[in-house]
Amino acid sequence: MSRIPVAIVGATGLAGQQFLASLAGHPMFEVRKLAGSIRSAGKKYGHAIRNEQGASRWFCSEPLAPEFTDITVEDSASMTTDGIKLVFSAVEADVARELEPRFARDVAVISTASAFRYENDVPVFLPGVNWDHAALIDIQRKNRGWKGFVSPGPNCTTVGLAMTLRPLDVAFGVGKVIMTSMQALSGAGRSPGVSAMDILDNIVPYIPKEEEKVEKETLKILGKMGPGGIIPADMRVSCTCTRVNVLEGHTESVFVELKRKATLDEVKVAWREFGSDLRALGLPSAPRQLVSLTEDPFRPQVRLDRDAEGGMSTVVGRLREDAVLGGVKYILVSHNTRMGAAKGAILVAEYLVKKGYV
Amino acid sequence: MSRIPVAIVGATGLAGQQFLASLAGHPMFEVRKLAGSIRSAGKKYGHAIRNEQGASRWFCSEPLAPEFTDITVEDSASMTTDGIKLVFSAVEADVARELEPRFARDVAVISTASAFRYENDVPVFLPGVNWDHAALIDIQRKNRGWKGFVSPGPNCTTVGLAMTLRPLDVAFGVGKVIMTSMQALSGAGRSPGVSAMDILDNIVPYIPKEEEKVEKETLKILGKMGPGGIIPADMRVSCTCTRVNVLEGHTESVFVELKRKATLDEVKVAWREFGSDLRALGLPSAPRQLVSLTEDPFRPQVRLDRDAEGGMSTVVGRLREDAVLGGVKYILVSHNTRMGAAKGAILVAEYLVKKGYV
Amino acid sequence: MSRIPVAIVGATGLAGQQFLASLAGHPMFEVRKLAGSIRSAGKKYGHAIRNEQGASRWFCSEPLAPEFTDITVEDSASMTTDGIKLVFSAVEADVARELEPRFARDVAVISTASAFRYENDVPVFLPGVNWDHAALIDIQRKNRGWKGFVSPGPNCTTVGLAMTLRPLDVAFGVGKVIMTSMQALSGAGRSPGVSAMDILDNIVPYIPKEEEKVEKETLKILGKMGPGGIIPADMRVSCTCTRVNVLEGHTESVFVELKRKATLDEVKVAWREFGSDLRALGLPSAPRQLVSLTEDPFRPQVRLDRDAEGGMSTVVGRLREDAVLGGVKYILVSHNTRMGAAKGAILVAEYLVKKGYV
Amino acid sequence: MSRIPVAIVGATGLAGQQFLASLAGHPMFEVRKLAGSIRSAGKKYGHAIRNEQGASRWFCSEPLAPEFTDITVEDSASMTTDGIKLVFSAVEADVARELEPRFARDVAVISTASAFRYENDVPVFLPGVNWDHAALIDIQRKNRGWKGFVSPGPNCTTVGLAMTLRPLDVAFGVGKVIMTSMQALSGAGRSPGVSAMDILDNIVPYIPKEEEKVEKETLKILGKMGPGGIIPADMRVSCTCTRVNVLEGHTESVFVELKRKATLDEVKVAWREFGSDLRALGLPSAPRQLVSLTEDPFRPQVRLDRDAEGGMSTVVGRLREDAVLGGVKYILVSHNTRMGAAKGAILVAEYLVKKGYV
Repeated sequence: MSRIPVAIVGATGLAGQQFLASLAGHPMFEVRKLAGSIRSAGKKYGHAIRNEQGASRWFCSEPLAPEFTDITVEDSASMTTDGIKLVFSAVEADVARELEPRFARDVAVISTASAFRYENDVPVFLPGVNWDHAALIDIQRKNRGWKGFVSPGPNCTTVGLAMTLRPLDVAFGVGKVIMTSMQALSGAGRSPGVSAMDILDNIVPYIPKEEEKVEKETLKILGKMGPGGIIPADMRVSCTCTRVNVLEGHTESVFVELKRKATLDEVKVAWREFGSDLRALGLPSAPRQLVSLTEDPFRPQVRLDRDAEGGMSTVVGRLREDAVLGGVKYILVSHNTRMGAAKGAILVAEYLVKKGYV
Repeated sequence: MSRIPVAIVGATGLAGQQFLASLAGHPMFEVRKLAGSIRSAGKKYGHAIRNEQGASRWFCSEPLAPEFTDITVEDSASMTTDGIKLVFSAVEADVARELEPRFARDVAVISTASAFRYENDVPVFLPGVNWDHAALIDIQRKNRGWKGFVSPGPNCTTVGLAMTLRPLDVAFGVGKVIMTSMQALSGAGRSPGVSAMDILDNIVPYIPKEEEKVEKETLKILGKMGPGGIIPADMRVSCTCTRVNVLEGHTESVFVELKRKATLDEVKVAWREFGSDLRALGLPSAPRQLVSLTEDPFRPQVRLDRDAEGGMSTVVGRLREDAVLGGVKYILVSHNTRMGAAKGAILVAEYLVKKGYV
Repeated sequence: MSRIPVAIVGATGLAGQQFLASLAGHPMFEVRKLAGSIRSAGKKYGHAIRNEQGASRWFCSEPLAPEFTDITVEDSASMTTDGIKLVFSAVEADVARELEPRFARDVAVISTASAFRYENDVPVFLPGVNWDHAALIDIQRKNRGWKGFVSPGPNCTTVGLAMTLRPLDVAFGVGKVIMTSMQALSGAGRSPGVSAMDILDNIVPYIPKEEEKVEKETLKILGKMGPGGIIPADMRVSCTCTRVNVLEGHTESVFVELKRKATLDEVKVAWREFGSDLRALGLPSAPRQLVSLTEDPFRPQVRLDRDAEGGMSTVVGRLREDAVLGGVKYILVSHNTRMGAAKGAILVAEYLVKKGYV
Repeated sequence: MSRIPVAIVGATGLAGQQFLASLAGHPMFEVRKLAGSIRSAGKKYGHAIRNEQGASRWFCSEPLAPEFTDITVEDSASMTTDGIKLVFSAVEADVARELEPRFARDVAVISTASAFRYENDVPVFLPGVNWDHAALIDIQRKNRGWKGFVSPGPNCTTVGLAMTLRPLDVAFGVGKVIMTSMQALSGAGRSPGVSAMDILDNIVPYIPKEEEKVEKETLKILGKMGPGGIIPADMRVSCTCTRVNVLEGHTESVFVELKRKATLDEVKVAWREFGSDLRALGLPSAPRQLVSLTEDPFRPQVRLDRDAEGGMSTVVGRLREDAVLGGVKYILVSHNTRMGAAKGAILVAEYLVKKGYV
């Protein structure tokens, strides 16, 4: 069976590199085009990721696959969709706003950028959580006259929260949610990202726009598909987002009101059983458990648990009753640059291919 | 004016060292006795804090004051209160349970240990917050037939929380409180404390017994003095405590329900005006501001703010409205081994001397 | 072909766990016995590595293989060699001095402990460097009347140094060597190992006995087999060993006098060609390159390079001429708990099996 | 006695801030002008150091002194020397090359930039080491027709090395020197400086141009004043410079050949007695000991020792004989942004005022 030809836009940045790392040898997708800024255009990819002093700026733990080294990087401003059926977009929001509609006229665009995340006819897929939002794709195509579509992923901090809330909402109903995040350095990118002097022996208690994103996206992702679009979930989320000196993986401390009283065991069952329909689809990047439960009182620990199932499973632990909100409290670890970015986007793409949207 | 002669018990440990660091040249107290375990007994203090390889195990940033170097360490099990009027106790809870009553028969015992913290006739002073609890000292003396008394300080994590809640409670009434802490390494002590391999590029999401302590102590500290003892405050606290790779200073993300609607400006005024009565007392260790407010959106940062006013001021920032609980959310930084331990205990001692309890 | 039955002694400690992690599914060895202290004896291994609070103390990045979970841990003091042909020993030096001779009476003992490292009839194998020292095994057996033998590995800090010096010595002759190490936390073990408060934002400039070990072992490992034993290499090594806040992997800054003038290209060729005879043996744990050369001016970086070839290859970079000693200077990274400990020991075992010593 | 009016150029950067921190309330100097880039020009200093999000970019541990807050920052390109007698320059090398000669036509320029460091008629003062190089100022003035002069300080990594070598050279003669540095983050500046993702759990083994600077400057600083200029010291220095995850303070591992055999006690005496002539001058910023010796086997540790004497003393420890070079080996810690930058420059200025050069 032949693989679907794809392009990666924003291929030299940290998020773009993660697409390459996850698409090497992928059974469903074949990378045909790599695009970046005008500065990289015309260079072989293996050369484009070196700095002026000859040092490699490849940041993934997996080595760069040889199949990509000699692809000549195109200027994303002039890249066409000839010969490809899908664009993975890893550019910044302002660039996305310009580029993505151009590509979406013809092909599917699966993006990690926030540019279109809050538009009414744009779905924000979280794997296994809201596949029914795919109905928005048809609305979007009709609205905009596109043959393709734009499908942005959630903010990385939303991912673990919405993933663990979903089974609770289905089983017991979720009301108030209060969350404090301790987020990894990689979420801030690489050039320059967080300065080492700002974070050593320190915590930075503010990440601009992050809290608003999480509070808004969670309601959209967990919302129901109505006739005219998504009806936001009937819950309220308040959060505080901080940056800590951790390389990869976000930790979140969550307090949840449950509308129906639930025992801790019932909560565990809800999480354990969540995602069985996803497993049934047999998608290459899907984890066995979307939510993995640890009973070790000292877990989840971000360095030890972020890579669970290749960074595709959210690990929860320290489940306790919460008498203040009337529900439960817990801690979760989710991998912000795997399920929370490129690899999550690829899983969405796998689903959309399976369902005939690509 | 002559200084009050005091002893430090548990003098060689991290908490004990902090007493020495803060009592060097103190205008009200003169250290006459140092006591430690049988292993240290008989050695000069300067020698007792060296390990078998000759390395200094003095951990404070201030150098060890020469006035203490040649004091011979006594065995705390056999130390008497002859010639002293006050004992600063920095031992572990189990040792405190045995030693402190023996000293309290004759003299005041101001302690950082939790042993007696939850007993009905024992006050847990937080400077500027609950001086009226001093009435418990009389009850305690009567109950136990002691000439002295035991006065333990709060858990270090409770300090910043209760300090910032107090002015809100007085002004607006506090209902539900949800808190997530990111605590410093020094809170876990030194021998061995947290292993570097456990915390590098990591967060440890559990500190045994910490959450229960904070939830319980906050209500006691913020409670009202009734005829038969303290009536716990009418609020509910739920928290999750984590350990991060920070040397000193606890960061706490707090969400508070306010019973009476308050603007952010009203909240700021409440914090700013808090503690004026403490200033009026002129105690040597008292900060100008018990609670310092920062308007910098990226503050408080623990490395930059923990030492505010010598580690005696709790720094709050990122004040925002919280629609979920109906109140406010904010972040605070407080110094766990200054106001949160020895220096806070010394400030309590200064107050009790001023008021004639010592 | 049937696998050789082996035991791991000191199986619950950090070094022992690394043996388990590397022996899961090993094609040549089958773990039949696990032994530990009296405290662990009688427990299933999966239980023995939990602490009293139920937290896992398994520290390897690989998960614990199911095949080991239910093996009952024996008391190493009473373990016999019945049914096994080889003991991997991961105990401390003082325990090794007692246990290892008892096992060596009957079977081969491959150890990471230093107890017997400096005895005249004991080889210290560094893979690919000094296989000819195997002749000492016969001498040892004869001297001591043992059917088995003891074969300790080098100190982890010696490994990268001796590995990179060997090809230079063969090709050009090595004279003076000056080395400064920046060593990882894992080299200090886990219980408690290095305290986080001692190493955050810090360097500890002293590791007891480390420098003497490196200076002595390097000469033995690079020495020639003479009729009566090893003739130490004719070079002189001086070093300073420090501890830095790095999880795994030692970095060493090396300055070498070369007896015969060599260009940088000649040095590179010597390193690149080194180890071809090892490759020819087809041992399962052998790397393709014992020494890997990087031309990136900012490499080797310990976090990025320690896992080269599964932690079995020493990565060298920053090769420059050194006019002061008359030779070259470079930086190396080697994995202290892979080639520098358990996995290196397993590679030695594979060789000795191949050559009929086990 | 009236204070000397001075300007700080490059005042908003990290190095410039350190000048301000050290000149607040200085008894000899009064800051009259602050200059920065065109972006800061026209703003009050307190405003110029805030970023667009309102966050303070003041990085020193001392708070910004109120006396500087309201000074209006000038554009350094158009700043004149009217009303001032001395310029402290904290700009980058390329900017320094343009600006500093313009100022030096009229007034003294004491700089932390490297621009003029290697010119024959320019002294590179290291306090207490080479005051006799002041004779170059007269040569420089004559050569260039300036009323003022340029006096750049050494690279921060050279400071501790040259400071500890000087007494050894005077007493015993220094031959070969081999040094490996482990340098702090602050040496790389702040915007952006080192990326946290590059250095967490890592070492960066290369700092461009650093090694060449140290090797060259050490010989110039330790050189003798000859009739036509400085005769470089007759020694040879080879070094490897690395970056580690430490906030402030450089650690250096040094191996030194001594031309005359010396006991360790003789070396200690040489270090202890060094700098007595500096003390006699009574300069405000001078430390009591230029070189402080620690006998603790685990010291110097950079976090604990960098602030010795306000960061103005180089702390040495782990002194051992070195048989390979024929001399000694040791470890030193020196504060790269105190004696190694602004505060060292201020001490030089104090000396030059005392001697009538300003």
